[in-house]
Amino acid sequence: MRAATIRDGELLVEEHPAPEPGAGQVLVRVRAAGLNGGDMMQRRGLYPAPAGWPPDIPGMELAGEVAAVGPGVTRFAQGERVMAIVGGGAQAELALAHERELMPVPDALDWPAAGGLPEVFTTAHDAVFTQAALRPGEHLLVHGGAGGVGSAAIQLGAVTGARVTATVRNEGGREQVAALGAEAIAPEAFAERGPFDVILELVGAPNMPDNLNALATGGRISVIGVAAGAKTDLNLLALMGKRARIHGSTLRARPPEEKALAARGLEREVLPLFDRGAVRVVVAETFPLDDVAAAYDRFAEGGKLGKIVLTL
Amino acid sequence: MRAATIRDGELLVEEHPAPEPGAGQVLVRVRAAGLNGGDMMQRRGLYPAPAGWPPDIPGMELAGEVAAVGPGVTRFAQGERVMAIVGGGAQAELALAHERELMPVPDALDWPAAGGLPEVFTTAHDAVFTQAALRPGEHLLVHGGAGGVGSAAIQLGAVTGARVTATVRNEGGREQVAALGAEAIAPEAFAERGPFDVILELVGAPNMPDNLNALATGGRISVIGVAAGAKTDLNLLALMGKRARIHGSTLRARPPEEKALAARGLEREVLPLFDRGAVRVVVAETFPLDDVAAAYDRFAEGGKLGKIVLTL
Repeated sequence: MRAATIRDGELLVEEHPAPEPGAGQVLVRVRAAGLNGGDMMQRRGLYPAPAGWPPDIPGMELAGEVAAVGPGVTRFAQGERVMAIVGGGAQAELALAHERELMPVPDALDWPAAGGLPEVFTTAHDAVFTQAALRPGEHLLVHGGAGGVGSAAIQLGAVTGARVTATVRNEGGREQVAALGAEAIAPEAFAERGPFDVILELVGAPNMPDNLNALATGGRISVIGVAAGAKTDLNLLALMGKRARIHGSTLRARPPEEKALAARGLEREVLPLFDRGAVRVVVAETFPLDDVAAAYDRFAEGGKLGKIVLTL
Repeated sequence: MRAATIRDGELLVEEHPAPEPGAGQVLVRVRAAGLNGGDMMQRRGLYPAPAGWPPDIPGMELAGEVAAVGPGVTRFAQGERVMAIVGGGAQAELALAHERELMPVPDALDWPAAGGLPEVFTTAHDAVFTQAALRPGEHLLVHGGAGGVGSAAIQLGAVTGARVTATVRNEGGREQVAALGAEAIAPEAFAERGPFDVILELVGAPNMPDNLNALATGGRISVIGVAAGAKTDLNLLALMGKRARIHGSTLRARPPEEKALAARGLEREVLPLFDRGAVRVVVAETFPLDDVAAAYDRFAEGGKLGKIVLTL
């Protein structure tokens, strides 16, 4: 099979032996595989795949058809449309996932949408609902509303009855972000727009002091991205006075049972929304596998709204 | 009635008109009233009582007998032994509390123990269980294990099957703290004793960087005291890598319905432990109401194990 391959920081397409599904595993004929920030870091050697996953084939999410199943698989059969977050190896013609990691693809979704769904919607759902426990009527602030996770979080917040505000650096992108269900504002303006019950922090440390100032009593800050910096000051007395909490999280490092739990949460609480047309996967651009290097360059450029997805 | 009274930073005992119970309120003949850190701050003018509570009579917890009930009270009758956290006014012969704030006094407890129970056990239970969700088998670190909240948290952790480590600054106090069910160590030694699943922070900012370093994956830090400083550095990437969360909290500022909820939690999960003899209120010293100034001085001195309680 052909697969995107990282060789000394270069991104090539190379021939690899097809993987074989072991007990509980499903071999997926990949039709689409979204790009993520982690892929950019892995290309630079900073974010190796967890043990047990292909070290040189990138890709943390995929959608495709079941090509074969290993012993004991009961959830899916050959030909069914599936998608998943995986530890690596998704940007290839064939990839493995455990059946508990896989989710069915909603009928309403085409392949690029399905291939760009798992990471951003699982991340947003886990951070905003499972961790920060957003409730109807609350005010959600999404820092970095134009990215994949941001656009997923905005839609999930809006569809569950929260008021949503989103910061978007690129002025030209604010109209599109607003169309997802948020009041889209410049990052400099957010401190005056609170109080916020939940803040999804996708940008990093520079926002944190004002995040705490603008937080409502009982508010929650969920930190899942720190591209703009990781080190911040924290006033514990202010945290106590707000009776607030700060979560930090990553998906990739979690053990398989926790990832499978997150997938079950998505199946139950989010996937039905796609068939109802209440939320959608925002795809900025698709690239064929052969253009994987160009796709990575486009991702790294920034300024896009939504996902970059490889199609196969 | 006679009551401890704050006049320009001086602590006196003065005559006040007896309060009258309104709808849902209970008039308590106070038998014991514990001292708390907040009282020290209120004496210095830094921590005024919330609106609706006596501004000049200190005291945030009490135990005593029901002297009279206001219209609509159904939970308690005259003569019953009750205790509560109140917004102020506890250090007096008579004090008011709403019936939903009151809890029955376990039979096993004498008055000094009951008067020193509500604040520290509610605070410890709320911070360690309701917020940080300590589970059996986990490792709890209590910073400031010799204080009232610390000694309550150690016992609650130990009795619910957690392993407990506690820092105690005063070397002479470590043996007594160990007898409550913790491994008692010097504050300088804690960073090497992790990983900790839950850290109860009663000291403040200086511990925070090592708290995060010594935290287990999925760990929780509950910050409820910052006497040693409130401003700290926070590495968000480390917080993400640990998939950790940091809570800040205070009890006093909560609305009545949240305080009542905390009291119900204590009734259900903690009070039965006293009658079984599984936990106890550690009382360092008692003072009669007339010696309230000496009691405050003793509290401020530090180096005690457990509560300072006024008896009436």
